[in-house]
Parts: sequence; C-alpha cells; structure tokens
Amino acid sequence: MEDLSEIVSEKEKLSVIQPEAIRSALKRISPHLNKTPILKSHLLNSLLGHEIFFKAEVFQKTGAFKARGALNAILRMQEEGNLPKKVVAYSSGNHAQGVAWAAARAGIESTIFLPKNVSSVKKAATRSYGAKVIEVETRQEAERLAREEELKGAVLIPPFDHDYVIEGQGTACLEVLDEGIKPDAVFAPCGGGGLVSGSYLATKLACPEAKVFAVEPLIANDAAMSYRSGEIYKFNEQPGTIADGARTLALAPRTFQYVKQLAGVYEIGEEDIIYWSQWINHLLKITCEPSSALGMAAAHKWLHGQEKGQKALVIISGGNMSEETYRKIWQKDYLSAIPGIIA
Amino acid sequence: MEDLSEIVSEKEKLSVIQPEAIRSALKRISPHLNKTPILKSHLLNSLLGHEIFFKAEVFQKTGAFKARGALNAILRMQEEGNLPKKVVAYSSGNHAQGVAWAAARAGIESTIFLPKNVSSVKKAATRSYGAKVIEVETRQEAERLAREEELKGAVLIPPFDHDYVIEGQGTACLEVLDEGIKPDAVFAPCGGGGLVSGSYLATKLACPEAKVFAVEPLIANDAAMSYRSGEIYKFNEQPGTIADGARTLALAPRTFQYVKQLAGVYEIGEEDIIYWSQWINHLLKITCEPSSALGMAAAHKWLHGQEKGQKALVIISGGNMSEETYRKIWQKDYLSAIPGIIA
Repeated sequence: MEDLSEIVSEKEKLSVIQPEAIRSALKRISPHLNKTPILKSHLLNSLLGHEIFFKAEVFQKTGAFKARGALNAILRMQEEGNLPKKVVAYSSGNHAQGVAWAAARAGIESTIFLPKNVSSVKKAATRSYGAKVIEVETRQEAERLAREEELKGAVLIPPFDHDYVIEGQGTACLEVLDEGIKPDAVFAPCGGGGLVSGSYLATKLACPEAKVFAVEPLIANDAAMSYRSGEIYKFNEQPGTIADGARTLALAPRTFQYVKQLAGVYEIGEEDIIYWSQWINHLLKITCEPSSALGMAAAHKWLHGQEKGQKALVIISGGNMSEETYRKIWQKDYLSAIPGIIA
Repeated sequence: MEDLSEIVSEKEKLSVIQPEAIRSALKRISPHLNKTPILKSHLLNSLLGHEIFFKAEVFQKTGAFKARGALNAILRMQEEGNLPKKVVAYSSGNHAQGVAWAAARAGIESTIFLPKNVSSVKKAATRSYGAKVIEVETRQEAERLAREEELKGAVLIPPFDHDYVIEGQGTACLEVLDEGIKPDAVFAPCGGGGLVSGSYLATKLACPEAKVFAVEPLIANDAAMSYRSGEIYKFNEQPGTIADGARTLALAPRTFQYVKQLAGVYEIGEEDIIYWSQWINHLLKITCEPSSALGMAAAHKWLHGQEKGQKALVIISGGNMSEETYRKIWQKDYLSAIPGIIA
C-alpha cells in the first residue's frame, strides 16, 4: 500500500500546474474563506518612498494561509467524486489546523497527530475546529501513526507536496492581483515552497511582469542553496531559526520546479526577522509570525536598491505564535531604529 | 482671553448631547475614516459559550479611535464657519496623533507639543501626518505652550472635555449597531470618559435596551469611585497602571453626566489587563493596547454571571504601544491559562 502510494507520487512529480488552476481554486474555496484585507502603512510608505501592500493572511480562517490549500485539496477530491470519509495530518504548525478546519467545513472527519510539546492554545484551537487530536511523544511517531491511518482508508493531506495544496495557497496572491493592484515585485516566505509556488503561478496568470521572490531565514536557506546549485539541498536537522514556518528540511521536486523559475531567493538573518516582526506588529497592528516577517525583510532589501518608487506585495502568511516566540520577539527593542532612517 | 474661555467652558458643562448627534457625527466624519472591522473569535466564543463582537479601532486612522473625535471637532467648526487656521494639542497619547491627522485632513495646520520622553516611533508618526511637532521637557510645559498658542488664535482640541469630541468617539459604537448587531452589553475603556460617554449615547440611540459599562484599571479607578459616590473623584498623581490610556486623573463634569447613567463601572487588576492583552493579540491577531484589553476583561467578568448565552460588544480602542509596553506584556506567559478553563 505504501509502496503504491510512493509510485503514484513519483509520477505526480512530473505534473505541472497551469496558472489557470489558481483561478479555479479561488472560485472553489472563496465562498468558505475570509477575503483577507490588504493593508498599507502610511508611515512606512513615507519613510521608504515606496508603496507596500500587505496581504494579511493572519485574518484567514485558522489564522494562516494554510486553510486555503487544505480546503482546496478536500473540495477538489469531492469534485472528483473521491471525498474521503476522513483526512489525516501530522504537524505542529499551521497546516494541521488548516486541515482540521477544512475537514469540518466539508463535513468529514479529521484526525490530527500532534507532538506533546505543542502549545495548549494550539491544541485547543485544533479541537475547536472539530478534529480528533491525538497527542504523541515525537514528530516521528506522529508521522508513523498518520501513515497507519492512511492504510485504514484516511487520506493524508501533505503540507506542500501536492498540486491541490499549491493551487490553494496561490489564491492569497491572486486575490490581491484581482483588486487591480499591479506590484513590481511579490515576496512570499518559503518553507516547503507551497505558498511561493502558488504565488508564482498566480502572478504568472494575473500580473506576469511582476518579479516573484522566495524568502527564507539565512540559517534555513535550503531553497537559496537549491536555487543557486540547481539541485535540491536538504538539511539533516531542523534549523533552529525563530521562523518556525520555515524550518522545513528541503523543497519537494514538485515545488522546486517553480522555485527554480523565481526572480530570486532572499536569505534573512535572525535579527532582521525579529526587527520586522516588531515593525509589522507596530505599523499594521497585526500579529505577525516570524516566518511572515521574512517577506518585508526581503522587500526592504530589494526596495533599497531601486531608483524610483516601486510597488511591492508582501504576503503575511500567518499570525499563530507560541508564548515563547512572543517573548523572544519582544525581548529587545527594535522600534527605536526606524526603517529607512536608522535601519 | 483665558478667563473668557474658562467662562465659556463653564457654561458648556451644562450642555447635554442628544443621541442623534452621534448619527450626525458619523455622517460627517465617515467619508474620511476607516470603517473598522468587527472581529469575532470562534475559539473564544466556543470556550465561553457567548458571542463577543470586537470593534477593532486599532485599524482606525492613526491606530486609535481618537481620530474620530478630533475630526468631528474640526469639521463641526468648519460647518459653523469657524474653521481655525491652526489647531493645537498636547498629549503623549493617541489624541495628539488624532488631532495631527484630522488637521491635515481638513487642510489646516497643527502644532503638537510632546514631552521629550515620548517614543521616537510616536514622534515620527505624528510628523508623518504633517503636524509641527515641538518637543518639550515636561507635560506641564507642553500644556503651557499650547495655551500660549491658543492666545495667538489657534484652537486647542481637548482629549475628552468637549461635546464635539464625545460625539465623534461615539461613532465607533454606532457603526457596530448600524450593522444590525444587538448586543446585550457594551464595554468601553474609560480614561477621561469620552469614548464611554459617546458609546452610551450611541447605544441609547440605536440599541437602548443594551447595558453600557465603563471599564478602568483598579489602580486608576477614579470613575468607579465617582460612580459610587456621585461626585467626581480626582487622583493627585497619575496612577502607574500599564493601561496608559486610562491614567487620566479624573472625569470632567461633562463626561461624568453620562458615566453616572451607565449600568456600572468595572475595575480590572493589572494582571488581568496583561492576560487579556495577550489573549486578544493571540485570538484576534491584532495589536491591542493594555487600555483596550480592559473591555474584554470586564466582559469576561460580566458574562461569567450570566445564565444564558449573551452578546457582548467590546470596543478595542487602539493599538499604539511603546517598546517598553510590548516587553511588559510578553514578559510572563498567560497563554497557557485558557479563558473559561483555567482563568
């Protein structure tokens, strides 16, 4: 059974998503999702001399863009007559909550395996979406048990290595472009590459002249290394970046085929991630995960080299943080160093 | 000159705002302001068994409701043919930014006196609205210099002791009621009483059966003491509460006439203020000033005593915080204590 599914996924690696699929995904999922706001900061724009649009996925269902991909996967299965009775996911991050929420929306069961060290808040949230939450000792055990559920007929929804998931993630960017906003550059954080791949496809569809950049922490720069060498680089251990959404070990071949085509991959230092986490919180009045601050950190670097005023689109991927991350972010003062003046 | 203005304001103390004036104010100012979102937390509602609506004034121009009152004051003066060439304000808080912004919107000058210890971020923001920002040593000096400007013909816009300001502040609450939401109770933080007075009037107009509560820090409970005794209680020194928007020494007779008529005044401990600052940030993904957490802290107490499910409206007044306040809020972990379960 497992072998079969591996062969299938090996084949699927070759599939290429047509940009129009992002449009179809948006039609499919938008009746169920929040149309998240596009925010601007008058102060930031006047300090930098550019116009920056923030797509605030912190206001998406479950507090992150992940609800988009999970719902698109489930609804596409339903369209194809293959709606499973149960879906399963293992993750300590936003993807698990996205799957739990999407399953409830489609009226099917979900089982989510969470490692014990996941915060009580996250567990409570996942349960509140109606999922069966099973706490296990380690992430490895979570994965093993999820695979067992698969053998019993549940469908495992992967966090990024799936066409339907990537299509869903691209809808956040498409929603912005559909508002008539024509950015010169788009910045999306990159863990496994689902969001940036989807954003690339959306941009190709609706604003092909815009550059699209992936952004990751410098100490978790597998995508940058892969981009430079042309071959997927994989970390052996999870990098210890504060941007927990970008701790993924490697891209999948499925996402790498889009990352390869990007205008570039930015690598951001840990201090810069915290700096922009504080400033986005302060300027936009939104909770911003460290992973979500990556985009603005990269936009700032890119804009700095531009001679005339540019329009940048920054995807703020989510706003779910542990108590510990909040504390780490606010330990040191970066608000005294005003962007464009001291920074 | 000063004597005359004092006599005038003595007379004005007797004026009573008609609830319909909040409707007129909303018509007057809404074309220039953000219609701020009304947020809900699925998780919070399911934990508490009630329905809570949050009016997110953190997304108002300047990051706080204060832009409403300041703009209403300036535009009403304009309607009356008395648009001043220049307005002036002294404040280290949201009111100064509100006046600076509103003046620019009306095409008039503003001078804002800020004590030196105001954060660099706040100064930059006030300047970015086009105000002339003058830094002075103390708050007392700021007040003295502002009075001097008044003698030269500028109009001083007070933070709460003015009918036009109160009318403007009431529009936040009216916007919610205009959406057809019928709360059983409304909770507004109380410093000088402008916001809660305006909210009381708006509720009287559009949802008269709803109870309206003022909320203040226990260690800055002048309104509660005034409410109980029937006479305005005044602190000699600014109370050291973390809720800096509620450090006002006393209500004005103008606001006390409305506070007297409220359903009650809640007094909230400092730890509870921090608890709800964290949780609002976490659940709603918005930056919430400690003063703005007061409303939910009171709502939680009130809801706890209710037998059946209730609708509560909580006004989140603003989201402007200093680096120091951020750090204080995230020093200790309150997210492990889930509302309705451990709290």
